Amino acid sequence: MKAAFYEGNEQIRIGECIPIAPAAGEVQIRVSHCGICGTDLHVFHGAMDHRVTKPAVIGHEMSGVIEAVGADVSGWTVGDRVTVRPLDSCGACPACKAGHSHVCQKLKFIGIDRPGAMQKLWTAPAHTLHRLPDALSLKEGALIEPIAVACHDVRLGEVKAGEFVVVLGGGPIGALIALVAKQKGARVLVSEVNPFRIKLLREFGVEVVNPEETDLVGLVEEQTGAAGADVVFEVTSSKAGVEMMTKLPRVRGRIVVVAIFSQPPQVDLFKFFWREISMRGARVYEAQDFEEAISLTASGVLPLDKLITNVCSLDDLEWGLRQLEKGGEVMKVLIEC
Amino acid sequence: MKAAFYEGNEQIRIGECIPIAPAAGEVQIRVSHCGICGTDLHVFHGAMDHRVTKPAVIGHEMSGVIEAVGADVSGWTVGDRVTVRPLDSCGACPACKAGHSHVCQKLKFIGIDRPGAMQKLWTAPAHTLHRLPDALSLKEGALIEPIAVACHDVRLGEVKAGEFVVVLGGGPIGALIALVAKQKGARVLVSEVNPFRIKLLREFGVEVVNPEETDLVGLVEEQTGAAGADVVFEVTSSKAGVEMMTKLPRVRGRIVVVAIFSQPPQVDLFKFFWREISMRGARVYEAQDFEEAISLTASGVLPLDKLITNVCSLDDLEWGLRQLEKGGEVMKVLIEC
Repeated sequence: MKAAFYEGNEQIRIGECIPIAPAAGEVQIRVSHCGICGTDLHVFHGAMDHRVTKPAVIGHEMSGVIEAVGADVSGWTVGDRVTVRPLDSCGACPACKAGHSHVCQKLKFIGIDRPGAMQKLWTAPAHTLHRLPDALSLKEGALIEPIAVACHDVRLGEVKAGEFVVVLGGGPIGALIALVAKQKGARVLVSEVNPFRIKLLREFGVEVVNPEETDLVGLVEEQTGAAGADVVFEVTSSKAGVEMMTKLPRVRGRIVVVAIFSQPPQVDLFKFFWREISMRGARVYEAQDFEEAISLTASGVLPLDKLITNVCSLDDLEWGLRQLEKGGEVMKVLIEC
Repeated sequence: MKAAFYEGNEQIRIGECIPIAPAAGEVQIRVSHCGICGTDLHVFHGAMDHRVTKPAVIGHEMSGVIEAVGADVSGWTVGDRVTVRPLDSCGACPACKAGHSHVCQKLKFIGIDRPGAMQKLWTAPAHTLHRLPDALSLKEGALIEPIAVACHDVRLGEVKAGEFVVVLGGGPIGALIALVAKQKGARVLVSEVNPFRIKLLREFGVEVVNPEETDLVGLVEEQTGAAGADVVFEVTSSKAGVEMMTKLPRVRGRIVVVAIFSQPPQVDLFKFFWREISMRGARVYEAQDFEEAISLTASGVLPLDKLITNVCSLDDLEWGLRQLEKGGEVMKVLIEC
């Protein structure tokens, strides 16, 4: 059985893997599709070497069909079409006890801390499963995880109909945040510099500006009657994004930090004081975000066909990672397992 | 009539001032006491030179008795004991229209943008007045403004009974935040390095640690069962404070930025993501904060006698500013006008 192994030092090996029979509380899934995520790129770059056990099977944006069911699993049978919410919480830490198990203080992320989905037969805990409705193809099902990220971010941003939203960064997550926020009835503007992404976002019907060509602050001021944006999502991980994020919100506007900053950037705290801006970090998702992502996707309102720019085999995983790395002409790359 | 004038370049002159008769909508107040605020120090240092019109009468933490009432003023009569909420909003900008007139986009702060209270007879808009109850002395009345700042900060921090609160910085505002948060039933810990302030805060019954001597992160972890603090107030304006503020909150904990940062400091945005921390800026106060400050003060629960370390004459204003500047052995200095 083939699987993709991360072996350290930007090395991916496609090799044989022995399927693991599901233990109690687990199911074995015949993986259909698995998306390549920015997190997979971080693993590839070695940034997660303290967490992965090499050789490591990566991948966590997946869809598949249950192949076998372990003991003590109820509600799931062979043939069920599923996706996995790849979080394993301890259940005992203060965050879990306070009801925030998705940010468990000892969280295990399946696909980093435990083997991931880029293999033909994958064994995962049954409590992580979400059912895919008939209206969703398995290809679309592999997008539920990143769409759930966007649903979580938009929920934490408390985006309401009629609000003016700016998304800084139009990669896969930024694009999905824009699409989900539009579904809430918000007016959405994406700031992006990559011409391929700009073109693709416009094909989705999303308004995009290139901040290197357009005065974004002036545009937002003009379009909001000098008020400023209601919500700003920072999805660039860049110095320019952090500088911009505090210039755009209205008095008592909100910033959601989605991007991961490995180094602390300079942040204009004076602006927080001056306009009583609020900011919150958003990480992964909760069960309700997966359910929202599934029903939103099943409703057919998202332009997923255009978002999935490439469907490749396991052998093309390294190519896909390199495309993401260089900001190539890809948006979401799926691996057919 | 004597007044204190800021003349630029760290110069204060005590000189003669002609009283201004109240116009329509205004009252003239015989000023009793006026506190020296950090903002007055900023003015003294020239940081507000783009806003003040020199020679400028400064001061805004005041109490007094109405001496004369202008036309079109109802509800106020000569002899009423009052304090002033020194904000003048435009009423027309997006922030005012959204109900956030205290953060009006064209806000005039009385005592900076307009003449302040460090004079014997001061004319101010009637809409800024709050009545001082009989239970409050005029000396205590001059503390209502900074207490209202603390009430606003604690309200925006959504501090609840039983929560663990850390206040970084135990100067006048930090001390008042600690006292107001304690009144909400929170467990409060203040981080402060100045020995005089530490001693004074302990006399108030406030728990204080010196972060240069005690491992504050370890202490908070230990005392919260490894959860972290519910709310952190950053009141130091320092690099050390900003570094500390992201280390302390629990998962989904809150940070309130009270301090004013003239330069953007480095902020650990990763921590916001990792623990889904939220942060908001808090600026001045709203009418409800003044009312809360008045009733809290009138109830007698705050140790205001100890907080007021000095009551001086106008001639001592520069001395008071210099004490604040060097972190001398003062907490709140009042000027008797």
